[in-house]
Amino acid sequence: MQTTQPIRIDINGIMQETVGPRGLTREDLTTLPIAAAFEGLKAKRGQMRWRELPHNQTEIVADLEATAADIRAKFENFVVLGIGGSALGPIAVHQALCHLRYNELPAAKRGGPRLYVEDNVDPERMAALLDVIDIEKTMFNVITKSGSTSETMSQLLIITDLLRKKLGEDISTHIIATTDAEKGNLIKIAGREGWKTFYVPDGVGGRFSELCPVGLLAAAVCGVDIRALLVGAAAMDARSQSENLFQNPACLLAAAQVASMRKGCNIHVLMPYADGLKYVSDWYAQLWAESLGKRYGNDGSEIYAGQTPVKALGVTDQHSQVQLYTEGPFDKVITFLGVDEYRTTTPIPAGYLDIPDVSFLCGHTQNELIAAEQAATQYAVGKSGHMYSVITLPVLSAHTLGQLLYMFEVMTAFAGELLQLNAFDQPGVEEGKNATYALLGKPGYDAMRAELAAAPAPNPAYII
Amino acid sequence: MQTTQPIRIDINGIMQETVGPRGLTREDLTTLPIAAAFEGLKAKRGQMRWRELPHNQTEIVADLEATAADIRAKFENFVVLGIGGSALGPIAVHQALCHLRYNELPAAKRGGPRLYVEDNVDPERMAALLDVIDIEKTMFNVITKSGSTSETMSQLLIITDLLRKKLGEDISTHIIATTDAEKGNLIKIAGREGWKTFYVPDGVGGRFSELCPVGLLAAAVCGVDIRALLVGAAAMDARSQSENLFQNPACLLAAAQVASMRKGCNIHVLMPYADGLKYVSDWYAQLWAESLGKRYGNDGSEIYAGQTPVKALGVTDQHSQVQLYTEGPFDKVITFLGVDEYRTTTPIPAGYLDIPDVSFLCGHTQNELIAAEQAATQYAVGKSGHMYSVITLPVLSAHTLGQLLYMFEVMTAFAGELLQLNAFDQPGVEEGKNATYALLGKPGYDAMRAELAAAPAPNPAYII
Repeated sequence: MQTTQPIRIDINGIMQETVGPRGLTREDLTTLPIAAAFEGLKAKRGQMRWRELPHNQTEIVADLEATAADIRAKFENFVVLGIGGSALGPIAVHQALCHLRYNELPAAKRGGPRLYVEDNVDPERMAALLDVIDIEKTMFNVITKSGSTSETMSQLLIITDLLRKKLGEDISTHIIATTDAEKGNLIKIAGREGWKTFYVPDGVGGRFSELCPVGLLAAAVCGVDIRALLVGAAAMDARSQSENLFQNPACLLAAAQVASMRKGCNIHVLMPYADGLKYVSDWYAQLWAESLGKRYGNDGSEIYAGQTPVKALGVTDQHSQVQLYTEGPFDKVITFLGVDEYRTTTPIPAGYLDIPDVSFLCGHTQNELIAAEQAATQYAVGKSGHMYSVITLPVLSAHTLGQLLYMFEVMTAFAGELLQLNAFDQPGVEEGKNATYALLGKPGYDAMRAELAAAPAPNPAYII
Repeated sequence: MQTTQPIRIDINGIMQETVGPRGLTREDLTTLPIAAAFEGLKAKRGQMRWRELPHNQTEIVADLEATAADIRAKFENFVVLGIGGSALGPIAVHQALCHLRYNELPAAKRGGPRLYVEDNVDPERMAALLDVIDIEKTMFNVITKSGSTSETMSQLLIITDLLRKKLGEDISTHIIATTDAEKGNLIKIAGREGWKTFYVPDGVGGRFSELCPVGLLAAAVCGVDIRALLVGAAAMDARSQSENLFQNPACLLAAAQVASMRKGCNIHVLMPYADGLKYVSDWYAQLWAESLGKRYGNDGSEIYAGQTPVKALGVTDQHSQVQLYTEGPFDKVITFLGVDEYRTTTPIPAGYLDIPDVSFLCGHTQNELIAAEQAATQYAVGKSGHMYSVITLPVLSAHTLGQLLYMFEVMTAFAGELLQLNAFDQPGVEEGKNATYALLGKPGYDAMRAELAAAPAPNPAYII
């Protein structure tokens, strides 16, 4: 299998030639501010430190690999305490590159500890985790760049308390902190407790952090070839240098999406046809939503921009969403994400040969079935006049996944340039954070507490 | 805990009084064709056979419980082979009412077999399943109403072949079929093979089938109180009789969504604040999308209707989607789905008391934290002028879940009446099915094969 071949994109399904009048013309793409966007991307490369991650981590990778080898030898479980950008990347990479039922395999077949990524504060969930792991045989990796993420810090308080009850004051054998090298609470705590630390580099925001230690440690612990992941990302970085839109996969996809937004498509469905790629959609959903969902443009004008990402899974969601995708409004672009070859072949044996509705399947493989269904769904979506694009991995490998993740990151940055907004901040989450602090009585939030108290009472007529 | 209390809905967050000019007025609701929709719902009750499921299954429930008890005693694994409506309900109920890490618990703590719901044909997935189960210790429940679902039948061919190699020709001890009582291939196969069968009643479409044996068998096998589920659904049926819109939760929610669609909201986010409710969003996504995503209205006119469901999870997706929800376009309604009480309390212990950004959490519980975050996020969404509604379960139980599922079903049917379309068919999936048949060489699909062959070649300029 060609595990290091380039991934392909195909936007024919977005163009009028394929889908008719509701598709795009070449002019819809070329009349976007492409040259300015390429300029912006080049000018900001110095700030976009995530772009250098495939190139500048030689020593860090060696440290990660040594640390991972030690954890693989000593621990039954590896638990990530993190949320959002600290969780979605580790989940996506693990699902893509480890056995689909990795945690259920016997230890010898796994080769490394079970992986748990705890990205919620549901009290039932923490209790459920503690029902199935022995914390003395567990390494915890607490990840928060700022060190002030309430969800993660609440988990850390619970876990450190439990560990100290078992191990005494020094719990440094069971915790690794991944955070900013200088700023914030977590680095302060880790320093005085003597915990091993990895760093989230400056200029690498949460949703762009998968290819730094945030994502790489969990991947290495589970046996993923993290060097190949970075080499794949570097290959995509090289392809992303082209300023010919039609030779630059990340930027062409971005242009197609932005042009579709101008035609009223406020929804972007990412629909992998592989269980291994399922959680890439979740990771992408944060990247696309949080980067482009912005009230203000660079010039300070109100734009209320953003395209809502939707996660789907082929073929599963053909039986859930495709009715809507083919017969519903012309408000979405569907990106099919497929592979040329699966890593297993599963034949469909003969049986019930007298029943034609069943027997036509016999002698085929599930590989052929899923490939036919993807092609058929693309055809049906296009025939109904709805826009779609296709991304294809020759095979799912660390290298091709690295290409894919890096492509989505550059795509998002380029879309930010085309839309003339800041793709790297998230001012809209402050309001909710502050209200949470106020509700929990954190000092310094009296004004917000007063504001919440002053909110008009709900109308009982609208409560049943 | 009040496990049989009524669930509540609150649409204040949709109204202008709360969210300002982009919200709805009372007139936006009352000027919908409400009376006609109630008429339609009443007139079609005879056809909507899913509405009777809470009332007419006494004997079936007894059979299901006896069968489940037998399976619980004999098998290590219970595998559902099904997709779409045959899978999403079983997954949602299991996640809601069983331990959050059920499959990982030791057998004694589980009390029943592990559950696997196989709703895809990814060849890697079938191989992964077979790596972790011993099929001789596994009961398979193949579910397809029509008996011609290619995905499910391909799985059945693989599994029956393996079982026969282990057990000989008679594999009836290891398979239960859930299908139409008379029509289709599966009932034919089950009959001649002597398999135990349960039936999907006439007039109960896939996405409305969770409360018939499609969903109830897996639930009972995992120890869910299926009688309580049905009693809860019956309680919601009673509440759904009211023709006062403002006393009928299902219909008021439907009216609010349809009115929001008229104001340009083509997206409906369902965001549970409980890991247990996570997959209710997936189940709901099929129900809402497939029922209302329709090209033609009842009068034959082209309407291209449909509101795209989006799955989110609180608090996790606050760190992924809330930036978009508060600062992005006014194109969505967010329905928060919460609980008054979680089934566990998880205290946050003291620690790092000298760091105020952390120590304010100490002494609280994760229960308080997640509740504060839900309230804060609702506040932030409303303050930004975006519409939201709230559904609250007093506690997550079989009874309240039964209420919730039934409410969503009636809500969907009522929305279909308001939109004057057929909420119970899915004509848009035929095109893709036929193209799949053609691509796999099924006899009788020559015309489609010719159509596919005649499709214009893709333009290589749009492939990179």
